[in-house]
Amino acid sequence: MGKIYVVGIGPGNELQMTGQAIRVLEESDVIVGYPVYLQLLGERFAGKEMCSTPMRQEKERCQLCVEKAKAGKLVSLVCSGDAGIYGLASLMYEISEGEMDIEIQVIPGVTAASSGAAELGAPLNHDFCVISLSDLLTPWEVIEKRLTAAAQGDFAIAIYNPGSHKRVDYLQRACDILLEFLPSNRPCGYVENIGREGTKITVCSLEELRLRQVNMFTTVFIGNSTTKVIRDKLVTQRGYQV
Amino acid sequence: MGKIYVVGIGPGNELQMTGQAIRVLEESDVIVGYPVYLQLLGERFAGKEMCSTPMRQEKERCQLCVEKAKAGKLVSLVCSGDAGIYGLASLMYEISEGEMDIEIQVIPGVTAASSGAAELGAPLNHDFCVISLSDLLTPWEVIEKRLTAAAQGDFAIAIYNPGSHKRVDYLQRACDILLEFLPSNRPCGYVENIGREGTKITVCSLEELRLRQVNMFTTVFIGNSTTKVIRDKLVTQRGYQV
Repeated sequence: MGKIYVVGIGPGNELQMTGQAIRVLEESDVIVGYPVYLQLLGERFAGKEMCSTPMRQEKERCQLCVEKAKAGKLVSLVCSGDAGIYGLASLMYEISEGEMDIEIQVIPGVTAASSGAAELGAPLNHDFCVISLSDLLTPWEVIEKRLTAAAQGDFAIAIYNPGSHKRVDYLQRACDILLEFLPSNRPCGYVENIGREGTKITVCSLEELRLRQVNMFTTVFIGNSTTKVIRDKLVTQRGYQV
Repeated sequence: MGKIYVVGIGPGNELQMTGQAIRVLEESDVIVGYPVYLQLLGERFAGKEMCSTPMRQEKERCQLCVEKAKAGKLVSLVCSGDAGIYGLASLMYEISEGEMDIEIQVIPGVTAASSGAAELGAPLNHDFCVISLSDLLTPWEVIEKRLTAAAQGDFAIAIYNPGSHKRVDYLQRACDILLEFLPSNRPCGYVENIGREGTKITVCSLEELRLRQVNMFTTVFIGNSTTKVIRDKLVTQRGYQV
């Protein structure tokens, strides 16, 4: 029986991986991943067979894992953050649907909602939504519908993929939708380069956020109605009477 | 300057902690936490000063951290899962608001949404909401509003604290709200005792979920409109054409 681990490696540096993730990578014969993530793994796994496919060739990457597993190798497919949150876990299940002799196991990791929130303070410390602004695989109307629902439900929100050089105004468009429901002074924040060199946090209002240029290595946080700024950190109250 | 780490230790066993969490606990003079979490840490930190307060005395627990930090000790306050997701990160910021000589740092961990999803397959592999059904600190009407918004936004949903011996019918009430918007055969699942002895996963329909008795060590997952069951696992599609 072949086996493929789909492994979340957290934000990037080894200290933020779990012991379980390190263990399965050590056990594996082959490590498959997007080239940047393979680089992030660093020296520790340098002796392993490493395979990658370019960006947007995620299907091919999963198929490569199936081929390697069928050839008798123990395979780890690495994803940044958590393997099951905008990672390749679901695609791996879909691609291997008919491959009854291959077992899939997902190894969770620290997703950017958690690691970014920790940098900013505690913006997700109550019910929250995670929404990606990438419309590569999701129609923009669906993204709009979810932003609207998140605002109507008074959720704290973590926004993944808020922009890229091709999607310059997506965060602005998202903020415009949120501003239909939320006050312009709602506390927000964003984190650039989480867990890597040059980590930078910014706390601002929703109105200010609307005008910010962010890149694809940024995670954005929108507070809920109880979020306040304490000592320059974003704190969403749990409901305790302090 | 005193320092308090608020540390997410993941679902329970040491393999699911990050290296960073282990490192700060090793550095700390005092480890503070709910007694069960201190036990989960096991032998590794047995030589440390360990302090706890009973359940529902979270404010006292945070105050204890402040006192210890003021006395010159390096303190870690441990939380299960992620420290900033229904953990004590925000309360720690609130309690220490005026204590300018104490630094707070949140160390993220793997939350039950990630670790539970990994057991079930990939139920959160697109935009999702996390909602707690505990009405100890949140009015039930707010919880109802969020369940409604989550269903209207076609989010995948992770439900924390779905029940306890005092809140026997809360999951049923939540399912009744979701069933106003979602089909009765919507794929769902739940995980008991994540990351501990006796981990058990169940995949079922929303209608079936409505009738299940779950305890407080259970995390529940509701699929979105693209979620399907592949080889007994819950898989929410990312949008790739397979």
